[in-house]
Amino acid sequence: MTHPKKAIVLSSGGLDSTTVLAMAKNQGYLLYSLSFDYGQRHIAELSAAKKVAAIMGVTRHLVTRIDLGPMGGSALTDAIPVPKFRDSGQLSATIPVTYVPARNTIFLSYALAWAETLGAWDIFIGVNAVDYSGYPDCRPEFINAFETMANLSTKAAVEGAGRFQIHTPLIHLSKARIIQEGLALGVDYSITHSCYDPSPDGLACGGCDSCLLRKKGFHDAKTPDPTLYQKNVRSSSEP
Amino acid sequence: MTHPKKAIVLSSGGLDSTTVLAMAKNQGYLLYSLSFDYGQRHIAELSAAKKVAAIMGVTRHLVTRIDLGPMGGSALTDAIPVPKFRDSGQLSATIPVTYVPARNTIFLSYALAWAETLGAWDIFIGVNAVDYSGYPDCRPEFINAFETMANLSTKAAVEGAGRFQIHTPLIHLSKARIIQEGLALGVDYSITHSCYDPSPDGLACGGCDSCLLRKKGFHDAKTPDPTLYQKNVRSSSEP
Repeated sequence: MTHPKKAIVLSSGGLDSTTVLAMAKNQGYLLYSLSFDYGQRHIAELSAAKKVAAIMGVTRHLVTRIDLGPMGGSALTDAIPVPKFRDSGQLSATIPVTYVPARNTIFLSYALAWAETLGAWDIFIGVNAVDYSGYPDCRPEFINAFETMANLSTKAAVEGAGRFQIHTPLIHLSKARIIQEGLALGVDYSITHSCYDPSPDGLACGGCDSCLLRKKGFHDAKTPDPTLYQKNVRSSSEP
Repeated sequence: MTHPKKAIVLSSGGLDSTTVLAMAKNQGYLLYSLSFDYGQRHIAELSAAKKVAAIMGVTRHLVTRIDLGPMGGSALTDAIPVPKFRDSGQLSATIPVTYVPARNTIFLSYALAWAETLGAWDIFIGVNAVDYSGYPDCRPEFINAFETMANLSTKAAVEGAGRFQIHTPLIHLSKARIIQEGLALGVDYSITHSCYDPSPDGLACGGCDSCLLRKKGFHDAKTPDPTLYQKNVRSSSEP
């Protein structure tokens, strides 16, 4: 009997990355989940990621503290207000201020380092090019270029022991489809966290890009939204 | 009059990166030097990098604390002894245990994030494919792949504001040639630090790969080696 293959899964505790964890688990991988504490305002993410890791039975959940402070310029790490679209319900049309420079590049670089250390060749990331909020580093062109670079940068790959693969199982799925796939695999979305701007007790704001995408996903998937929103915001999936 | 262009220069306080700083300065760039505190044993590096930044007149010197602990497997961050070749004077033939998984990938990713934040398009790194100690992420193939990826990953590049360039002015130079170029630009190598395994007071061991390369460089450049070695080690450039 061969040993199960190891996979590194980038986990934010959100809807997308939790679905990816379930997919990798369903493919028989031994799971190693990786979260980043980068001074983000939504520390509720890290708490959700920890819960998700426990429920998914990951072999190891690693939280790495990284300092993106000086690389700022983003509403996720700086004091810029997160934009709200509660009145119009519209998503931002251009690359939003919640963009963090080179964030997925840094995240995937750490995943690559950990993969090489563990002897894993498979890295999963829940990027999505459909409902992707305009982030350039969520597109297939970026992922392909990262994979090429990864296989030229590491001892393990250069010595011919294997080939790193960046898996993006959600990249062409709508949010509704992601939710349907996750539910089919038994994901409990009530423990996941997507909001960019939660209340101090961790309730979702219901008005940021991420909340709007999530609400629309449950609505389009014709399934109840288990998210606890702050009470002044009505969920679009409510009757 | 146009403003001078900004350059991010990865600086370890070593011979190579200090030469690169001098080269970028000579090309008229405004300098932003970036060092990493990654729990390396040779904290003497960071002290040298700070001194170098002051002497080179950089606009800002940033030290970023990054946690590579769990991504270990290397003599530079872990408790593996640094190999010494004092008896034979030979360099390691294969990729050495001082290799840190995906190190340059992580370093360049941070540089990219800082570059986008500052509005800089030029990143300088002192990698060298001649005397390169067998690190896969010091080769031109890797650098080219990183540059391609960088221009697909960032808002600034995707929106067409410019194109990131990774400059590797040392990549095809011998250590002796690097030293000659640096001396011509007025570099004071006595403040630089290369040793992987210095004494508590910061003196170079004289026996690790990095010390051997440095000694050979001064010897081949037919110029005195200003490095202070621990006294039980004889410098190869001594008579």
